[in-house]
Amino acid sequence: MKNGTTRRGLLKAGLVGGAGLAVGRVHAQVAPDPAITELQPWQQYLGPGVDAAPYGVPSPFESHVVRRNVPWLTADSVSSVNFTPLHELEGIITPNGLCFERHHGGVAEIDPGMHRLMINGLVDNPLVFTMEDLMRFPRENRTYFLECAANTGMEWRGAQLNGVQFTHGMIHNVVYTGIPLRLLLEEAGVRTNGTWILPEGADASGMTRSIPMEKALDDCLVAFAMNGERLRPEQGYPIRLVVPGWEGNMWVKWLRRIEVGDQPWHHREETSKYTDLLENGQARRFTWEMDAKSVITNPSPQAPITHGPGPTVISGVAWSGRGSIPRVDVTLDGGVNWVQARMSGPSFDKSMHRFYHEFDWDGRPLLLQSRAHDSTGYVQPTKDQLREVRGENSIYHNNSIQTWFVDEHGQAENVEVG
Amino acid sequence: MKNGTTRRGLLKAGLVGGAGLAVGRVHAQVAPDPAITELQPWQQYLGPGVDAAPYGVPSPFESHVVRRNVPWLTADSVSSVNFTPLHELEGIITPNGLCFERHHGGVAEIDPGMHRLMINGLVDNPLVFTMEDLMRFPRENRTYFLECAANTGMEWRGAQLNGVQFTHGMIHNVVYTGIPLRLLLEEAGVRTNGTWILPEGADASGMTRSIPMEKALDDCLVAFAMNGERLRPEQGYPIRLVVPGWEGNMWVKWLRRIEVGDQPWHHREETSKYTDLLENGQARRFTWEMDAKSVITNPSPQAPITHGPGPTVISGVAWSGRGSIPRVDVTLDGGVNWVQARMSGPSFDKSMHRFYHEFDWDGRPLLLQSRAHDSTGYVQPTKDQLREVRGENSIYHNNSIQTWFVDEHGQAENVEVG
Repeated sequence: MKNGTTRRGLLKAGLVGGAGLAVGRVHAQVAPDPAITELQPWQQYLGPGVDAAPYGVPSPFESHVVRRNVPWLTADSVSSVNFTPLHELEGIITPNGLCFERHHGGVAEIDPGMHRLMINGLVDNPLVFTMEDLMRFPRENRTYFLECAANTGMEWRGAQLNGVQFTHGMIHNVVYTGIPLRLLLEEAGVRTNGTWILPEGADASGMTRSIPMEKALDDCLVAFAMNGERLRPEQGYPIRLVVPGWEGNMWVKWLRRIEVGDQPWHHREETSKYTDLLENGQARRFTWEMDAKSVITNPSPQAPITHGPGPTVISGVAWSGRGSIPRVDVTLDGGVNWVQARMSGPSFDKSMHRFYHEFDWDGRPLLLQSRAHDSTGYVQPTKDQLREVRGENSIYHNNSIQTWFVDEHGQAENVEVG
Repeated sequence: MKNGTTRRGLLKAGLVGGAGLAVGRVHAQVAPDPAITELQPWQQYLGPGVDAAPYGVPSPFESHVVRRNVPWLTADSVSSVNFTPLHELEGIITPNGLCFERHHGGVAEIDPGMHRLMINGLVDNPLVFTMEDLMRFPRENRTYFLECAANTGMEWRGAQLNGVQFTHGMIHNVVYTGIPLRLLLEEAGVRTNGTWILPEGADASGMTRSIPMEKALDDCLVAFAMNGERLRPEQGYPIRLVVPGWEGNMWVKWLRRIEVGDQPWHHREETSKYTDLLENGQARRFTWEMDAKSVITNPSPQAPITHGPGPTVISGVAWSGRGSIPRVDVTLDGGVNWVQARMSGPSFDKSMHRFYHEFDWDGRPLLLQSRAHDSTGYVQPTKDQLREVRGENSIYHNNSIQTWFVDEHGQAENVEVG
């Protein structure tokens, strides 16, 4: 069996000799199929050795699996966004190389030896930490989604972008290792009138956001690792703030300073940006928590059904800034009938969840939707339900139900059914 | 506050002007420190934009974090091993680029369009699956460690390799997405006398191993994704077998065929290799399950303590092929006194666990050890306890307690204390 000729002989006999490959539920019989009757090149030569790739990369056959930006969306690429290819991912972990990026002054390329974290303001002991100092504090490992408040922001007035990467790809889900921010604040000694913090980034934009002290002391982390290794440069290397369940803009990257104050700072990113203009001209502000949301990733416009009728797997993700996702419903007919999806993989608070729905496709068009229920009992709204409350002027916090139309050839399209 | 000069002025005032930086528990005060009194380059220029890295890579400052091989260990690099840098990792997920590799004929560079999985032998319906066929089956997401049976194999007769990457780095821990093997075998219809399977790889070595049907139908997966993305070439792209808790050699990569039979095949990898020669000349065979094990990853020879006495974090990992790890003990004095470590992060069956022990180092030498308890009640043995049963002829299945000696400068060394 170790001899190529023998193996090929066996396969040929098995197929061509009519060993009776029966038609099963979901297998293809393609005999005589050179893919199995002939030895493939990779069976016949010794491949690259263990010294070939000290840090490994994906197969060349997966080179289409990349983050993508939409050039017309922003004036330049240093204050812009690229999107996670959700339709290419499995499970709940976003690989580090594929985590969406959003910068306001490009990627700060920081030498960790020259990086410091300062805590100042209303504290008893203003402190300056080196990276080595931070590594002496107790660490925790927790999995959280990070979603930009503008995710799905183009879809308020109708179906726009034809791909789940672009409609929902401003999200990633990562296992963080970090120091509870509470420990660092306790070390500095927050004064009784210290009720807000202002984290500040070391990038050229000097990103800042106001965060209530209650949240800072609750579950925020100063993270230095993601998915097992040090943060990637575009995700805040060497340290970023993790603000679980809250909009991504607050997760200040390249964190260099935390000021403690007695009121919010009303900086640009919490006044002219990251507020929600309502129909009556008033704007919601400090809308930090990300509402429960879900989306079907496969099939979707970038990932059509390529096989014919029969067994078909629908796959998708769901998340909530308020807890976990005990349940997701799926409809094949635009909301007339709903079935409960199968969840697979761990369920963590404020983390992405993976759901599946397997069904026998009859080859007729589909109107696919998913609807998340979170652990607080909240149910993901339809677009119309959301617009009733929020109008159509918003950019941020669109967590409405997404619809994909799938035609008889399996091609999918972004459509709106209310 | 957005103006560089103002910010620099503020920092200078805060530090040089004596704002009273008190000496806290674990922060360094290095004033006047140019790292904070002067603007750093990355604050002053716009960094790379979102189109710079469609598939991201680590910071250049982390270029030392790589898999490493030991050239003298094997005759060539195509049938060899490189090792996971455990001392550089956090949490429980091993990043895909850093998962240890073990090949027997180099990395098979497979075109997934030309790859097939065949099930033959004692089945009612011999089947051939394309990748597209496989994607129509229900999938599951589960996290498992994969440990080579030879991990720590050089240490039987004494402390040899000076680095946790080399003593314990033939392990990785990954979230797999795959199809339960049970579903594929059911599709083929295993005959009543089909009690064993023989998975076979599509690489040049045509790797095969015998696996009892009971295990095949229990928790094995045909995995196509790891940590959210498609398998890496060196990990079996496009599909590999996942055999939870069992030695890595059985997790056949580049899986092309599964033969069903009524007895084991006694191939090379289960006779001359992957058996355990005992003191009396007899050899243990079919020792598939990986015993509970743990190791301190930091500090360790490649990762000394670089700060002085005071708050210090000990970090390590533990795992068991039989279940989860509810408890790990740590000793600072070679086993005289043990304390229970703090576990952090999720606890899954047959998955890696992360433990920590924080303590105030007095600056005197340490003899560090960790000891895992698994969910069956089994306790990781000392080297002497293991040798009493297994002798010193073995290569495989060394799960004994590891000792690091740490000197007064924080330098660590691989030593043996029994």
